[in-house]
Amino acid sequence: MANLEDIVSLCKRRGFIFPGSDVYGGFAGTWDFGPLGVMLKRNLMNLWWNFWVEKRDDIFGIDAAILMNPKTWVASGHTATFADPLVECKECHGRFRADKLADGLNESVTTEGFLKLKIKCPTCGKENWGPIRKFNMMFETHVGAVLPDDLTSESSKELVERSTAYLRPETAQGIFTNYKNVVDAFYPDLPFGLAQQGKAFRNEISPRDFILRDRECSQMEIEYFVNPKTWESEFEKILGEYRTFLTEKLGLKKSDLTEVEVPAADRAHYSKRTVDIMYKYPNGEEELMGIAYRTDFDLKNIERESGKSMEYRDKTSGEVFVPHVIEPSIGVERVFLAILANAYSEEKVEGKNETRTVLKLPELLAPYKFCVSPLLKNKPELVEKAREVYEFLKEKYTFVTWDDSGNIGKRYRKQDEIGTPKCVVVDFDTLDDGTVTVRDRDSAAQIRIKPEEL
Amino acid sequence: MANLEDIVSLCKRRGFIFPGSDVYGGFAGTWDFGPLGVMLKRNLMNLWWNFWVEKRDDIFGIDAAILMNPKTWVASGHTATFADPLVECKECHGRFRADKLADGLNESVTTEGFLKLKIKCPTCGKENWGPIRKFNMMFETHVGAVLPDDLTSESSKELVERSTAYLRPETAQGIFTNYKNVVDAFYPDLPFGLAQQGKAFRNEISPRDFILRDRECSQMEIEYFVNPKTWESEFEKILGEYRTFLTEKLGLKKSDLTEVEVPAADRAHYSKRTVDIMYKYPNGEEELMGIAYRTDFDLKNIERESGKSMEYRDKTSGEVFVPHVIEPSIGVERVFLAILANAYSEEKVEGKNETRTVLKLPELLAPYKFCVSPLLKNKPELVEKAREVYEFLKEKYTFVTWDDSGNIGKRYRKQDEIGTPKCVVVDFDTLDDGTVTVRDRDSAAQIRIKPEEL
Repeated sequence: MANLEDIVSLCKRRGFIFPGSDVYGGFAGTWDFGPLGVMLKRNLMNLWWNFWVEKRDDIFGIDAAILMNPKTWVASGHTATFADPLVECKECHGRFRADKLADGLNESVTTEGFLKLKIKCPTCGKENWGPIRKFNMMFETHVGAVLPDDLTSESSKELVERSTAYLRPETAQGIFTNYKNVVDAFYPDLPFGLAQQGKAFRNEISPRDFILRDRECSQMEIEYFVNPKTWESEFEKILGEYRTFLTEKLGLKKSDLTEVEVPAADRAHYSKRTVDIMYKYPNGEEELMGIAYRTDFDLKNIERESGKSMEYRDKTSGEVFVPHVIEPSIGVERVFLAILANAYSEEKVEGKNETRTVLKLPELLAPYKFCVSPLLKNKPELVEKAREVYEFLKEKYTFVTWDDSGNIGKRYRKQDEIGTPKCVVVDFDTLDDGTVTVRDRDSAAQIRIKPEEL
Repeated sequence: MANLEDIVSLCKRRGFIFPGSDVYGGFAGTWDFGPLGVMLKRNLMNLWWNFWVEKRDDIFGIDAAILMNPKTWVASGHTATFADPLVECKECHGRFRADKLADGLNESVTTEGFLKLKIKCPTCGKENWGPIRKFNMMFETHVGAVLPDDLTSESSKELVERSTAYLRPETAQGIFTNYKNVVDAFYPDLPFGLAQQGKAFRNEISPRDFILRDRECSQMEIEYFVNPKTWESEFEKILGEYRTFLTEKLGLKKSDLTEVEVPAADRAHYSKRTVDIMYKYPNGEEELMGIAYRTDFDLKNIERESGKSMEYRDKTSGEVFVPHVIEPSIGVERVFLAILANAYSEEKVEGKNETRTVLKLPELLAPYKFCVSPLLKNKPELVEKAREVYEFLKEKYTFVTWDDSGNIGKRYRKQDEIGTPKCVVVDFDTLDDGTVTVRDRDSAAQIRIKPEEL
């Protein structure tokens, strides 16, 4: 089983993921994708978009702004309830998420219940707590001409309130707010879906677990609008298609995925069915994604807050209703880490007292499909021939890298670590018969073949 | 010449771009991309990425977080100087960008110079101005456990300051802060570039001109690191490659592009050469993009602020120096609008007293490559055959749409408006000989051909 620290270390060493603002000592809860991370992330997001949007006739794309009218979050309930319980130590003024300070607590912990547990402050060791307060996780900002001294001036109170906006805590509401414009412009048949990929922000009190619980993430969400009569079968269909996507497209193992039917008591009050798909991450099982039947909760909220009708008129039956929604939602970073954990492996090198680290990434996800090398760097005829092979493959497959550093064994180790499926080596036989050595990442087996036959 | 209002109207009607948060009456300076806008935007961004990153050996991708350590903006100078002159009317408390209230003013307008002009308030008509103040255009937020009452409490001042962060006003600094990690992980030969696509935010006092001056935009920036001895030739090379990209890849007309050598007095103090490429937008000539030689200004700022060396050791000569930078920077929305303006045309329909609106988009950018229709909707044999042709083309080209609404003339008008290069119509002859009618968007000419020959 992969170990999280090994994955984090590989990610930095090989340029997949760096800590955000690393040069300045970092910035908690943010991560930057390096050259190889961008390639893998793009492959993942493009594969998702192709599978869920481009290949289908019933799902369309949306790309809404991150800054939205604040009414959005009143309507959705985020302004009132998107909050974690915060507690402050009155001795050292450290602030903590109360429900993370002892086992068995959850987000609805009360001050009374918390104090009973006689928890000591993890920073100063004393026990002198303030009351538990709700800390809204939306990042707040001000849009328009608000000056720093307005924020503390009594006379600017109304101006400041009027200008307050939030970084969206989810991409979903950017879809719901566009539902009406899409229906007006396209009038698609039900069921139809709107899909969005984009950034979302949550001001986690304690970001942790690498990219699993960060403050800035990318989501891939679909709101699938259905006739309420058919929600059960449409839910099953989406769930089935997601099973295919996760296992066949992304290569995740069925045995690492657990589907959890969320019991009524744990579901949002409006949801009649929610399935969480859990993944066995190196540090334990965690939510990978969720599929929720949200009824007409969101569109009805928008009707109430905007005063506009969200009704849809069925073209055949003439029936008029507010569509219901099935929402499959997945975080890019969560699935990115699942892909890395699934691919990461350490193996004994056959016949040697050595271990090699291999990222067994599916070919569609691997940053590079081929690496081309000359066997020896100091033989111009080999280098020249290898450049020819490189140019040929790069023209054909784009995702091809060149490596003439160190010796051939070191190059294999490096390409194994970044998940390149095939290493192509040009040697003296190539000059004779045009064949190259092609080494397979997973089996380490080598064959000789002409580049045109790849 | 296209008219901006016509483009805005087409964008909303056909689902390219909707006003942000439209259902709630909008949210100034934000825009949402609808289904067709997402397709065009993705085509544009993927084309750029392919041209500048994937096809090249010397430019790598980066995808940094939007929230960065605030030291970033101290180092870059944004905290001190990324500001517009703001003036408040003391009568009605309206706030304005001072330099936009009269002709001939610029960003360095002083209170004295402003008051001399005896400008009247555009809102209340009175003339009673406060002093001009610098309004920093970075959106401010707080990261970590800061509660609303901390913002006004004297005792939380230090906590609030410590937690203050900004939405990045440019993607460039997310590249510079990753320079060292990339060099450590890859040690690429000079010259090499790092490219990033992503959101940037500017709190414009008065957003305007559709997507040209919005508060949230996407940028595509490259920092190209060079040996200072070669900057002049590398600058020319990048400029030449951008000319190719804009005209040959995006199809913009040379006659609509003007290259302006920015004179020393208007350049940033550290820049020895800046070229702005202007585009003739419907509302006048405006900056489309810029290429700036930034010397070692940014890396030296990071050295100063982080205390870390940004030096690079040349592999061949052993020379050690801080690389210099050439930065080509382009905004997605600006080039998106240039593409629409370039493509938009209204033409007389031959032989009829009618005008058709056509988006003459390059095939690579068009949302759909083909539209497939049955000639008549109520003939099941035509519909069935047309579905077959549709499935065949969709499998092969992905970007294929189906249209059986209205009559064939109406469908052509619609596909013209969304820029679909070819309309494929299945009629009774198709049932006999397998050929379909293919109508060309730009010439409106029709030919008969088998779908396999497309």
